[in-house]
Amino acid sequence: MSAPAISVIERALAGFKPEDHGLPADFILTKLTAMKGCGCKVPREVLLELLKTFDDGSMVIDNDAGVGIGLDSCVVPLRHKGLNLVQTTDFFYPLVDDPYLMGRITAANVLSDLYAMGVSECDNMLMLLGVAVELDGVARDVIIGQFMQGFKDNADMAGTKVRGGQTVRCPWLLLGGVASSVAADDEIIRVDQAKPGDVLVLTKPIGGQVAVNSYEWLKKKTGRVEELGLDECKILKAFQQVTVQMCRLNRNAAKLLHKYQAHASTDVTGFGLLGHADNLARAQKEQVQFVIEHLPIIEYMDEIATKMPNGNGFNLFTGTSAETSGGLLIAMSLENAAEYIREIEMLDGFPAWIIGRVEATSGNRGAVISPDRQIHSVSSSIHQQLN
Amino acid sequence: MSAPAISVIERALAGFKPEDHGLPADFILTKLTAMKGCGCKVPREVLLELLKTFDDGSMVIDNDAGVGIGLDSCVVPLRHKGLNLVQTTDFFYPLVDDPYLMGRITAANVLSDLYAMGVSECDNMLMLLGVAVELDGVARDVIIGQFMQGFKDNADMAGTKVRGGQTVRCPWLLLGGVASSVAADDEIIRVDQAKPGDVLVLTKPIGGQVAVNSYEWLKKKTGRVEELGLDECKILKAFQQVTVQMCRLNRNAAKLLHKYQAHASTDVTGFGLLGHADNLARAQKEQVQFVIEHLPIIEYMDEIATKMPNGNGFNLFTGTSAETSGGLLIAMSLENAAEYIREIEMLDGFPAWIIGRVEATSGNRGAVISPDRQIHSVSSSIHQQLN
Repeated sequence: MSAPAISVIERALAGFKPEDHGLPADFILTKLTAMKGCGCKVPREVLLELLKTFDDGSMVIDNDAGVGIGLDSCVVPLRHKGLNLVQTTDFFYPLVDDPYLMGRITAANVLSDLYAMGVSECDNMLMLLGVAVELDGVARDVIIGQFMQGFKDNADMAGTKVRGGQTVRCPWLLLGGVASSVAADDEIIRVDQAKPGDVLVLTKPIGGQVAVNSYEWLKKKTGRVEELGLDECKILKAFQQVTVQMCRLNRNAAKLLHKYQAHASTDVTGFGLLGHADNLARAQKEQVQFVIEHLPIIEYMDEIATKMPNGNGFNLFTGTSAETSGGLLIAMSLENAAEYIREIEMLDGFPAWIIGRVEATSGNRGAVISPDRQIHSVSSSIHQQLN
Repeated sequence: MSAPAISVIERALAGFKPEDHGLPADFILTKLTAMKGCGCKVPREVLLELLKTFDDGSMVIDNDAGVGIGLDSCVVPLRHKGLNLVQTTDFFYPLVDDPYLMGRITAANVLSDLYAMGVSECDNMLMLLGVAVELDGVARDVIIGQFMQGFKDNADMAGTKVRGGQTVRCPWLLLGGVASSVAADDEIIRVDQAKPGDVLVLTKPIGGQVAVNSYEWLKKKTGRVEELGLDECKILKAFQQVTVQMCRLNRNAAKLLHKYQAHASTDVTGFGLLGHADNLARAQKEQVQFVIEHLPIIEYMDEIATKMPNGNGFNLFTGTSAETSGGLLIAMSLENAAEYIREIEMLDGFPAWIIGRVEATSGNRGAVISPDRQIHSVSSSIHQQLN
């Protein structure tokens, strides 16, 4: 596997100019949906209610919702001894305006559910596509062609291939995939082993929903930027930072789970940092609580959230702001966490953080954000590199 | 595995009464989309054009389109010797008005791509759901709950389980699934071995698109039924017949492929009988042509197609009328075909037919409908059983 010809960082910094691709200058990809990225999930309560239809426990829908054993992927022991089918699917709508980067994000997001289980070898990907009915022939070919290229490039980065899929017409542009691995028992991390005294590690900053939405305000000239008195340049930089992070695979993060004996892990997506932390905490064998004490937030996104009504825009500070293709959240020993963070930063070129701890509890399992939580503003390394 | 509590035949004959489920009497499920079943596919030419983006041949999108090696599922040789990941996905929109039966059809349709390869053991299913944004809470719970039950019941019938999925909001009600099997080499039929002298067998009648659409005319009172002078009772019976056929698994058909040494097989869905026959013929090792001489058509559907403008409604007689969860199309020796047909009829309670033959050709591989083709009207056994 070699790195794709197109650099995510260069592409994110350059921005997508529709006219360079034969599209009208006012073409905006994200107008092809009313919902963005992982923010399109059916609410968790609704899903849980619907699943009550099944009283025999044989059906588990949307593992992301923490239904059943709270795993990100399903793990199916096979007829062939010692082997398991580990599998996940995700689909959603465009949330950045560059269809190539949307392809990379879509692939990274679906692979992430395998990586959250420590499974770093994906054996096959399928691509799911709903082609917006309103697209004309030119737009369709540009958008879908570039999307496919981005999806394929991240499959290459992941050392896997795309060998099937389904393409239908749909009112919104629908993007997704399926990732599958046939993994030996020891390739899969047991994610229910968190112990009191463990710390929590996070491998990507939060604030993606704020970044994507504030960039939309800018791009669609909604007046919101002026109304809140926001800085356009800072919004753009944050959007570029989050785009690069969403394209980045959690594959190294997955490999290191084994090396540093992670006790539990999940990836942070539609339910936000606290939502996924809570799912994971509830799935633990020991009666533990996850306490989040630091919120690593993409630079300037905390300021935007503060300026919004109630001072908690998109529920950023209460931890339920949606992320798309977010980082891994991991419980491990303090000693291992320090080494894990050092090594992932070396491999990926981006920082990770200890954001909390695992406590014994006599009450219910779950996750909370500490009242004394600290905001940690994550400045953009992609701009520092170039400036 | 035991048969589900709900009988498909009884349910199809009873019809779906929205008011029995707390829904408005004028609620029509198929109004939640502008496209029906496998008729929603992006046209084959468009797909093939888009795939030219990839010149390295590493990406195969939508195997149904006959891209690449023309298989219905992708077959991925694994790191674990002698094993393959066989995998397929499909999603589409409602085409019958009973959400429970829609769940059974959706599961049968996705499983069918495994069955077409002779793989009769599915190791896992994922469910894909787009919940129409316009549904209110009551309608959503009824529709999705019943859909899930139907999907699960057919997974049970297939001896497999649903262990994951994704649920998003979407303007149309989107229904689909993923089916995966980790299969030993000898569980998979080599589908490129058709020989001159073979005959073609079909295990379900065609005419699904005509039946579903004429029933829509009736149900939505479009005036088309009166305009064409159609018989309402016959339309209803045809719709019930095709509904039962769409719910029926091709699993026995798959198992018998091994017993009777099938040389080639595929399932008939969105591109119609001729479209899929043509894909399969082109994938053969030997230079052959598939000649279709008999069209087994659901009773009365040929009459409707004849009464429509140009006398070939929905391209029924030219073989490209879309089917959803259609039968298997198989090339095998004449002796084996006779035994195959006898045994599938015994197991499933529905007939299959020899519909054509495999010829050597000096021209291009492909499939044609013979100018002397015969129409065979397939009367409904589900009504005969009850009358």
